[in-house]
Amino acid sequence: MGHHMASNLLKNSDFSLVVYDINPTTISQFVELSSENKNRVQVASSLKQLASESDTILTMLPESSHVKAAYCSENGLLSGLSKNTICIDSSTIDTSVSIEVSNSIAKHGGIPFDAPVSGGVMGAKAASLTFMVGSRTAAEFDVAKSILLNMGKNIVYCGDLGSGQTVKICNNMLLGSTMIAAAEAMNLGVKLGVDPKLLADVINTSSGRCWSTQVANPHPNVVPTAPSNNDYNDGFGASLMLKDMYLSMNAAKSSGSSVMMAALATQIYRATCNIDDLAHKDFSSVYKLISKK
Amino acid sequence: MGHHMASNLLKNSDFSLVVYDINPTTISQFVELSSENKNRVQVASSLKQLASESDTILTMLPESSHVKAAYCSENGLLSGLSKNTICIDSSTIDTSVSIEVSNSIAKHGGIPFDAPVSGGVMGAKAASLTFMVGSRTAAEFDVAKSILLNMGKNIVYCGDLGSGQTVKICNNMLLGSTMIAAAEAMNLGVKLGVDPKLLADVINTSSGRCWSTQVANPHPNVVPTAPSNNDYNDGFGASLMLKDMYLSMNAAKSSGSSVMMAALATQIYRATCNIDDLAHKDFSSVYKLISKK
Amino acid sequence: MGHHMASNLLKNSDFSLVVYDINPTTISQFVELSSENKNRVQVASSLKQLASESDTILTMLPESSHVKAAYCSENGLLSGLSKNTICIDSSTIDTSVSIEVSNSIAKHGGIPFDAPVSGGVMGAKAASLTFMVGSRTAAEFDVAKSILLNMGKNIVYCGDLGSGQTVKICNNMLLGSTMIAAAEAMNLGVKLGVDPKLLADVINTSSGRCWSTQVANPHPNVVPTAPSNNDYNDGFGASLMLKDMYLSMNAAKSSGSSVMMAALATQIYRATCNIDDLAHKDFSSVYKLISKK
Amino acid sequence: MGHHMASNLLKNSDFSLVVYDINPTTISQFVELSSENKNRVQVASSLKQLASESDTILTMLPESSHVKAAYCSENGLLSGLSKNTICIDSSTIDTSVSIEVSNSIAKHGGIPFDAPVSGGVMGAKAASLTFMVGSRTAAEFDVAKSILLNMGKNIVYCGDLGSGQTVKICNNMLLGSTMIAAAEAMNLGVKLGVDPKLLADVINTSSGRCWSTQVANPHPNVVPTAPSNNDYNDGFGASLMLKDMYLSMNAAKSSGSSVMMAALATQIYRATCNIDDLAHKDFSSVYKLISKK
Repeated sequence: MGHHMASNLLKNSDFSLVVYDINPTTISQFVELSSENKNRVQVASSLKQLASESDTILTMLPESSHVKAAYCSENGLLSGLSKNTICIDSSTIDTSVSIEVSNSIAKHGGIPFDAPVSGGVMGAKAASLTFMVGSRTAAEFDVAKSILLNMGKNIVYCGDLGSGQTVKICNNMLLGSTMIAAAEAMNLGVKLGVDPKLLADVINTSSGRCWSTQVANPHPNVVPTAPSNNDYNDGFGASLMLKDMYLSMNAAKSSGSSVMMAALATQIYRATCNIDDLAHKDFSSVYKLISKK
Repeated sequence: MGHHMASNLLKNSDFSLVVYDINPTTISQFVELSSENKNRVQVASSLKQLASESDTILTMLPESSHVKAAYCSENGLLSGLSKNTICIDSSTIDTSVSIEVSNSIAKHGGIPFDAPVSGGVMGAKAASLTFMVGSRTAAEFDVAKSILLNMGKNIVYCGDLGSGQTVKICNNMLLGSTMIAAAEAMNLGVKLGVDPKLLADVINTSSGRCWSTQVANPHPNVVPTAPSNNDYNDGFGASLMLKDMYLSMNAAKSSGSSVMMAALATQIYRATCNIDDLAHKDFSSVYKLISKK
Repeated sequence: MGHHMASNLLKNSDFSLVVYDINPTTISQFVELSSENKNRVQVASSLKQLASESDTILTMLPESSHVKAAYCSENGLLSGLSKNTICIDSSTIDTSVSIEVSNSIAKHGGIPFDAPVSGGVMGAKAASLTFMVGSRTAAEFDVAKSILLNMGKNIVYCGDLGSGQTVKICNNMLLGSTMIAAAEAMNLGVKLGVDPKLLADVINTSSGRCWSTQVANPHPNVVPTAPSNNDYNDGFGASLMLKDMYLSMNAAKSSGSSVMMAALATQIYRATCNIDDLAHKDFSSVYKLISKK
Repeated sequence: MGHHMASNLLKNSDFSLVVYDINPTTISQFVELSSENKNRVQVASSLKQLASESDTILTMLPESSHVKAAYCSENGLLSGLSKNTICIDSSTIDTSVSIEVSNSIAKHGGIPFDAPVSGGVMGAKAASLTFMVGSRTAAEFDVAKSILLNMGKNIVYCGDLGSGQTVKICNNMLLGSTMIAAAEAMNLGVKLGVDPKLLADVINTSSGRCWSTQVANPHPNVVPTAPSNNDYNDGFGASLMLKDMYLSMNAAKSSGSSVMMAALATQIYRATCNIDDLAHKDFSSVYKLISKK
């Protein structure tokens, strides 16, 4: 994703980029990208160096611990940070860790934002991502927005620091639950002899409709562009959905919320990921578990 | 609902109606309707009489046992049925009972259809109901369709006898699950300090979107026309949703389907209906249970 | 089971038996049993004949519909019933159907009892079954008890007609839930590196202890006599447990009870039975589902 | 609990105690205890001082973060630790944090043990606690055992460091699930008209039996000494059970275990604790939620 986002940033703005990744393959992709874009991409030798040469920093990492390490470890980004550097973290992580890192950024003089995205690899490629942004003030949000518009279409101001994470995780928790609910309904109808395409058509114009029936229907041969139609390849990996469901469980715990359906859904994705092959398939492959036999 | 449907039938067609109901209040509403419509409505003294004077019969009843009794009891509809009478049952009942009654109708020379509706009282009033129809043949379906178009907008051919029930129950089972999932997501976000309107707006343009967030959002002050905005009055009663969830559990049992999320949702509606007042509120009042304290 | 129960009845009492079964294999077992017991077993040619020649009737059938048919169908037991015949149904069926059949028995002059058993094939063989009995009066219960003591050890008076079924189904619903809970706890400990025998030992002397950890521990090599130690063979079949869980769901529906854990457990047994081979294994084979990978 | 444990330690051994608590009330209780025991209890002014004056340290704290802080913070226990000090942590905390702290203790020359207890306040008072102990070697375990026998009856060697926590949490996760399952079964039977005492008696001699039906039956008037008989006072608080359920969710996540029933149970305790008054009642007060209306 980072590569696609950088590519759009180069295309849609005048920014020059300083990049860092621990994966050499990604680095060499960036080198190639640079040669295609008048050498506007430079590879940093450390996070500290990257920070010291940037007035805007954008991070996109898999887990809470990575974000904390990237910013706060010795020789991390904070160690090289200049005053008023814009720091946008687009990782999807625990709200509590996000706020903690944002506070550290602020303490070092940076301007913190949490800005997780939705839209997946496709959205990153097409610069049509949605960014859900938490920031200290609406004025600061406007600054971040102007930058993010180079990579996305909807830049939403969600409120205080951390609220971007919260909104993202609420959406994905709901998505995780509705996908399984959709899988159960599709499987039930099909087992009772109804044509899956017809069933989806009725649901999609009725009150059962949801993104999971309309866009990513888990039953094959219903939506041509859905991952289910491609043996559940591409799409949003079941293991990534599981990660987000676990984040939502943390959010529920910290806020004292009872989330029975989502808690069950979490364990169903856990079971899905425990089945050979499915962890790396699209999360709609939960249909294989639901429809067994 | 029956009253609204009859009213539209009178308005949109040349049919004269023979009606029957065990509730005197409903009967007197029909008498009034008749006086407004050139006496085209006649009240039958028994189901047998009604059947003997009709070439098309439309039934709309609360439960499986009522439908079976209306058709198959002594002096029931079948006892007065003429050959080739069109028999459309719009009740939402067990698929197995529906098929059983349809087979009895066929044995008595009638032409059976199961045709449950979605769209609620509002849809009945506006003649915008969706009818999900199971029939023996596509040709017979066309006959039923021409009649049903006087009361609804979408008349969907779902397949063999019973398939109308199956499609209806799959949609409502999914609706039941997604509403609770939506309630959990809205409650989580709000507890973590996000504005409910903003949260709904993001979800509604993202992958978590569903009818339950877009049209009937369970959090008050998000969708002006949602029951949640009117203290959960009107709408689709929690006890009716519970009834449909139980029907879906029967369907799952009979087809050997595992429906973990829907089974949990069923019990959550059961708990909702066990709380004073909520049984007769819209089913989105499950939000009160979810968001307690 | 019927065969073992009959065998004990012959051994422990002076009764002569008239038997009926639709399965010829079972009939030939009864013929053999007769030759071993001074021809005290006679095969009836119909249920009507059986009833007309018996002053005590004992039925043991798989499902509600079978019990209803055996008693109430044309030429069924009721058609041959003499006044004051003792009618004990040991099937595990819906409480509502049980009460309905009992009322029919009473109307025909018989003395009805519902008396489902626990203890399984082993208990039937050893005459150590528990009978949970519903009857009209304590005095009538005493009559049934004297008969049932020939086949069981604990004959429990549960209250009015139907209460035997209720008590049985409450116990088995709880058993179904605790077995899965035990499977989750054993699997969790083992995955985290604890020895299963040690884990079970601690649990069995602590507050987590239950029949499912002490007697039928689902992890192999913990309890020598548990089905898990014999590749989940023998024991109480997963499909039988599923049947009882569905009965408990009916009981919960009819009484307006919310049973979230048991509803989820029901669906987990459904999923278990959808896996090749497991339906006919002991219900503790749910461990294979839980511990996958 | 700490007070009772200290009291037994004084009574059953020759140890002199150095104590520390942030709560002044607890401290004054310890002062009183000292006066009753020949001044064998001395209050430390800091954790560092306590460590420097002790050859055995026993900690009992509410949460993972407290244990980490007590040992690892500046001026914490590790800062005053002598070589070969026995460090027994009896808190119930995350296995991963427990192992992390144990490793720190070892690095500072101490001998680490995780030794969470079961048996509650009653067990602490009666010196009948069960200690579930993880240690580096069986020989080191024997040393800890000789100390712990002054405060408990069963000192169980569970395996490597962390295994005490794992065993404890597996037991309590199972307990949490079975209590709700028991509540559902008791409520179902009672709603269907069965006497609760009779129902419990049958279950307790049948396969549904568990600690939650036998010792702490959640229905009032069944077990005289159960908290349910005392309006759910005393016993093991619902909020403490919720804490342990959350720990079990962490354990399940870290080990890749799917725990559907326990995850649902967790959320049901969350809902219980969200109801006024119930958080501080015994966890069997979940019965009030289950049996509503």
